[in-house]
Amino acid sequence: MLKGIPVSAGIAIAPIVRLSQEQPVIHETAITSSDIKAEQARLAQSIELARDQLEQLRQQTEDTLGSEKAAILSAHLAFLDDPAFAGEMNSVIESQLLSASAAVQQVSDQFISLFESMDDAYMRERADDIRDVSRRIIRNLSGNEQSVSFPEEPFILVAVDVTPSETLQLPIQHVRGIATVKGGATSHAAILARSLGIPAVMGVGEQLLFEVEYGTMLILDGTSGELFPDPDGEALTRYQEKAALEQIQRQAYEAMKDLPAETLDGHRVHLMANMAVPEEADALVASGVEGIGLFRSEFLFMDRSTLPDEEEQFQAYKRVAIAFGEKPVIIRTLDVGGDKHLPALDLDQEENPFLGFRAIRISLARPELFRVQLRALLRASAYGHLLIMFPMISHLEQLREAKSILEQTKTELRAEDVAFDENIAIGMMMEIPGACLQADAFAKEVQFFSIGTNDLVQYTLAVDRMNAHIADLYSYYHPAVLRLISHVIDASHRGGIWTGLCGEMAGDPLATELLLGMGLDEFSGAASVMPKVKERIRATTREQAKRTADHALTLSTVEDVVSFLNNKAD
Amino acid sequence: MLKGIPVSAGIAIAPIVRLSQEQPVIHETAITSSDIKAEQARLAQSIELARDQLEQLRQQTEDTLGSEKAAILSAHLAFLDDPAFAGEMNSVIESQLLSASAAVQQVSDQFISLFESMDDAYMRERADDIRDVSRRIIRNLSGNEQSVSFPEEPFILVAVDVTPSETLQLPIQHVRGIATVKGGATSHAAILARSLGIPAVMGVGEQLLFEVEYGTMLILDGTSGELFPDPDGEALTRYQEKAALEQIQRQAYEAMKDLPAETLDGHRVHLMANMAVPEEADALVASGVEGIGLFRSEFLFMDRSTLPDEEEQFQAYKRVAIAFGEKPVIIRTLDVGGDKHLPALDLDQEENPFLGFRAIRISLARPELFRVQLRALLRASAYGHLLIMFPMISHLEQLREAKSILEQTKTELRAEDVAFDENIAIGMMMEIPGACLQADAFAKEVQFFSIGTNDLVQYTLAVDRMNAHIADLYSYYHPAVLRLISHVIDASHRGGIWTGLCGEMAGDPLATELLLGMGLDEFSGAASVMPKVKERIRATTREQAKRTADHALTLSTVEDVVSFLNNKAD
Repeated sequence: MLKGIPVSAGIAIAPIVRLSQEQPVIHETAITSSDIKAEQARLAQSIELARDQLEQLRQQTEDTLGSEKAAILSAHLAFLDDPAFAGEMNSVIESQLLSASAAVQQVSDQFISLFESMDDAYMRERADDIRDVSRRIIRNLSGNEQSVSFPEEPFILVAVDVTPSETLQLPIQHVRGIATVKGGATSHAAILARSLGIPAVMGVGEQLLFEVEYGTMLILDGTSGELFPDPDGEALTRYQEKAALEQIQRQAYEAMKDLPAETLDGHRVHLMANMAVPEEADALVASGVEGIGLFRSEFLFMDRSTLPDEEEQFQAYKRVAIAFGEKPVIIRTLDVGGDKHLPALDLDQEENPFLGFRAIRISLARPELFRVQLRALLRASAYGHLLIMFPMISHLEQLREAKSILEQTKTELRAEDVAFDENIAIGMMMEIPGACLQADAFAKEVQFFSIGTNDLVQYTLAVDRMNAHIADLYSYYHPAVLRLISHVIDASHRGGIWTGLCGEMAGDPLATELLLGMGLDEFSGAASVMPKVKERIRATTREQAKRTADHALTLSTVEDVVSFLNNKAD
Repeated sequence: MLKGIPVSAGIAIAPIVRLSQEQPVIHETAITSSDIKAEQARLAQSIELARDQLEQLRQQTEDTLGSEKAAILSAHLAFLDDPAFAGEMNSVIESQLLSASAAVQQVSDQFISLFESMDDAYMRERADDIRDVSRRIIRNLSGNEQSVSFPEEPFILVAVDVTPSETLQLPIQHVRGIATVKGGATSHAAILARSLGIPAVMGVGEQLLFEVEYGTMLILDGTSGELFPDPDGEALTRYQEKAALEQIQRQAYEAMKDLPAETLDGHRVHLMANMAVPEEADALVASGVEGIGLFRSEFLFMDRSTLPDEEEQFQAYKRVAIAFGEKPVIIRTLDVGGDKHLPALDLDQEENPFLGFRAIRISLARPELFRVQLRALLRASAYGHLLIMFPMISHLEQLREAKSILEQTKTELRAEDVAFDENIAIGMMMEIPGACLQADAFAKEVQFFSIGTNDLVQYTLAVDRMNAHIADLYSYYHPAVLRLISHVIDASHRGGIWTGLCGEMAGDPLATELLLGMGLDEFSGAASVMPKVKERIRATTREQAKRTADHALTLSTVEDVVSFLNNKAD
C-alpha cells in the first residue's frame, strides 16, 4: 500500500499508464555556423506546431469542459506569441552556436527562475506555464510529439507531476484517476482534477514510480489517499462494491444539488465550503455550495519575501467576490504565525507557536499592515457579498480594537469617495476556549460567530494535533468540546446572531445531527464532503436532532459519544 | 536597574560588600623532592585549621540558628575526616611533585567531576560541598583565611555565588540582603536565605559585578527581583518607607502565625505552601503553613541521565512525610515534558511542547515508570499524611487508567505485606480547560481538585506565558478563567469534595476575596506571600467575599475585573 495526499475524492480501479515526462535527452547541443538558419527554422516550425496543438486543445476543452477551463491555456499561448520568448531563443542559437533544443532549454530555464523569484503569487505560477510550453516545444523538436499513446479504455495516470495542459490533453472519458509523485491539494492540477471529478492522489513520493509498472492494476482511493498496486481478488471486489456505492451516492448527491439543506420538518441551515485559493472559486460555485464559510487570506501572503500591497489584495478579493456574486464569502483576515511562517514579517522562532504571536495578535501589533488588508477587503466588498472575520480573538478588547481600526478605515474610504458595502457583516472565529466561555459578551459586538474546531480542540484539551505521541487524545467529540460548541451556539442565539462551524467537524457526517440539534446555523467544510452532510440533514427532524444533542451532552467520554452517534447512524 | 530571580522576599537598603571568591592564584605548583614532607605538613595543618573553622562555625550556627541548619556543615566535615580525600592529596604531592595548593586543586577537581556525574541528586549536590571545602583549604594554605572582613554595620552581600558555609559564616545580624550573579530559587543558598529571612536576588548575571562597587548604596527588592545601585534620594525615601511598612507587616504576620485562616464570620479555609525541593521542608514547617498544597516530584528526576529507583524515591518522599508529620503534603506525580526536559526519558523535540507529550501522558504511556513512583509514594504514605495528585488530566479515561494502576500497586504492596496509608486521598490538577468543563464528572472519581492557574490560563487564552510578544494577554483575571475556576469549585462542592488552587493566583492578595467568595477551600502559594493572603481572609466575611465574586463574574474584561478588585482593596 502506498499513501499520498488525497486531493480529489472518489475511487478508481484501472490499469495504470505512465506519463513519460523525461525531457527528451538533447544529444546534439553544439552546431556549426552553417547550421544556424536551419536550427532557427526548426525552432519556428516547432513553435508553430505547439501553437496549433494548444489552440486545438483549447478548442476541444472549450467544447467539452467550457470556456472557464479552456482559459487556463491562454497563458501558454501568450508565451508562444511573445516575440521576446522566440527572439531570445533565436539569438542564443546564433550567438552561442547551440541547437534549437538546447536554446529552448536554456532560455526557458532563465525565464522560469525569473518568474519563480517574483513576489506576486500569480506571476510565480506562470513559471509552471513556461515549463509546460518549453517541454512541448522540445518534444516537437525531437519529433516525439507525445511520448505516450493513451489506450482507448479506462486507465489511471501515473506521473512525476502533471501540468494543467497535460491534464486537459488527457482523454477525459478514459481517465479514471491520477496519481503523482509530487504536488499537493492546492496545485493547479489538483484543482482541475477536483473540478473534472477525477479521483486523484498526489505527493505520493518516489516510491510511486518504483512500485507500479505500465499495465499494473491499481486501486486509488482519492478520499483516503491510499493506493493499492496489484490488488488481490478480495480487495478488488471490496473496492468495486465501494466504487459502485459511491457512484450511486454521487448520483443521489447530484440530484440533491439544488435542494435546500433543510430537515424533514423544514428547519433550514446553510452549507458552505472552505476555500484555500481563489482558483477554486469556479468549481465551488458549480458544486452548488451556498457560499464560502471560510476563505483564508493567507494564500496571498505565503511563500514570498515581501507583502502584497493594497492593490494586489484588492484584485484578489474582488475576483472572488465577483465569482460568487450574491452568495456570501467569509474572508478571514491574516492568520499567520503558529505553523504558518511568513518570511516578510520576520517573526521570531517561538517555543510554542500555537500559543504564540499569531493571527489577530500580529494584525493588532502591526496596524499598518492590518489597515492595508481591511482597505482591500472593504473596496472588494462593493463587488459581491463579502463578510469579514477576525481569527484568534481571546479578549473583548482585541475585538473592539480590530473593529475600531475597521471603522477608521471606512471613514478614510468615505472621505476618498471609494465605494464599499456599508452593511458588511463582521464576525469572529470561536477557536479559543476563553472566547467561547465569554460568547455572551462577544455576541453583542459581532454579527456572527464561526467555531474553528481544529484549534479549539487543541486548546481545550492541550493537545497539538500534529503531535503523533498524543494523537489519540485529539477529538472534537470530547464532552468538554461539545459543551463549548453548544454554549457558543446558545449564546449567539440569545444575542440574536448566528453561528457557523468551519473546522473538519463541519464535514463529518457523524457529527451532523449532533450539531444540527445544538442549533448550528451554518456548516462549512471541504466541498466534496458537504453533500453527505446535506443528506444527513435532509433525513432527520429538528426534534430528533435536538434529542441526539441533548443526550450526547450528558455523556462523559469520547468513546461514549462516538459509540452513541454510531449506533444512531446505523 | 538590574533584575534577577527573586528568591527571598523583602526589601534591603545598605552599602554593598563584595565577597571575593577568586581562588587564590596558585603561583608555585612545582616543588622539588626535598619539599615533599614540608608541603604534606602544610596540607595537614591547613586541613586541621579548616576542621577547626568549620567545627566552630557549626557550633556557632547551632547556638544561633539551631541544629537543623548546623547539620548542613556535617557533610563538609565528613570530607575533611575522610582519609581517602587527604590521602589522595598527599600522594599527588609526592608522585607528581606538586605544591599542596596545586594538589588540593587537582584532587578536588577530580572528586567534583566524579560527584557531578552521579545520578543521585543528593550525591550531585555534594560536589558543591567539596568545592566549598577545597576553597577553604587553599585559602588556609595561602594564609589568606578570609579574603574579606565584614563591616560591623548593615551591608548587602554581592558575590558570584555563595555556598551554604559562606552563608552561615556571614555576620547574620548585619547582612541585610544577598545578590548573586549565578543561582536560582532552589539553590541551597536561596533556601537558606529564605529560612533566615534575608532578602535575596540571584541569577542577576555578570552585570552585577560591573555595575556595583564596594561601598555603593544598593536597594534590593527580594519580592520583585529588582536591584537599584546608587539610588537617588527620592528612590531611597520611597523604598525606606516600603521597607518600614514591610517590617510592620512582618510583625503583624508573625503575630498572626498561629491564628486560623478564617473570615470574620468564622468561615475556615486552609493555607498551604508550594514546595520545590525537600530541603525547604523545615523552613516551611516553621513558617506556620498548614501543609503542602503542591510538592513537585520533578526535583528527583531533573538534571540526571538515569531515573531514580523506587528506593531513592521512597527515601525522599518519606523524609518529607516525616518532616510534616500530621500536616498534609500533596505530592504531584511526575510532570515533565513541556518546558521541563528529562534526559533519561529521551523525549522527542516537539513543535509545541506545552501542547505535547508531558506529565500524566508520559506516565500512562510508560506505566513501568509510573508504577515505581506510585509504589514509592504509597510506601512513604505510612510515615505521614501524603496525598497523591495527577497532573495534566484532560480525559476521564486517563484518570480511570491512573487510578487503576494505583489500585494494582496497592494490591501488590498488600501481597508483599508492605505498609501504606489505605485511606490515602487521590486528587487531580485542574489545569486543562477540557477537564474544568467536565468537573462534574471528575468530581465523582477523586477526593480533591487542585486548580493550576499557571497552565490553565495558557490553554484557556492560547497564550504561552513565556512568550514576551503576547505577555499582555496573559492574566488569570480574564473573565473566562474566572468562570472556569468558579465552575470547578461549584462542581466539586456539588460532588462533595474540596478544591484547592496552587498557581500564582493563590498567593496574590488581590485575588483572595474573589477566590474566597467563589468558595475555594485551600490556597497554596509561595510561603512568603501566604501571610498577606491570611490577612485578607481574616479581614472579610463570607458574605462580602461572595458579593465580590458574584460581581466580578459579571464583568467582561481583564481591566474591569482588576480595577473593580483594586477599588475594593482601597
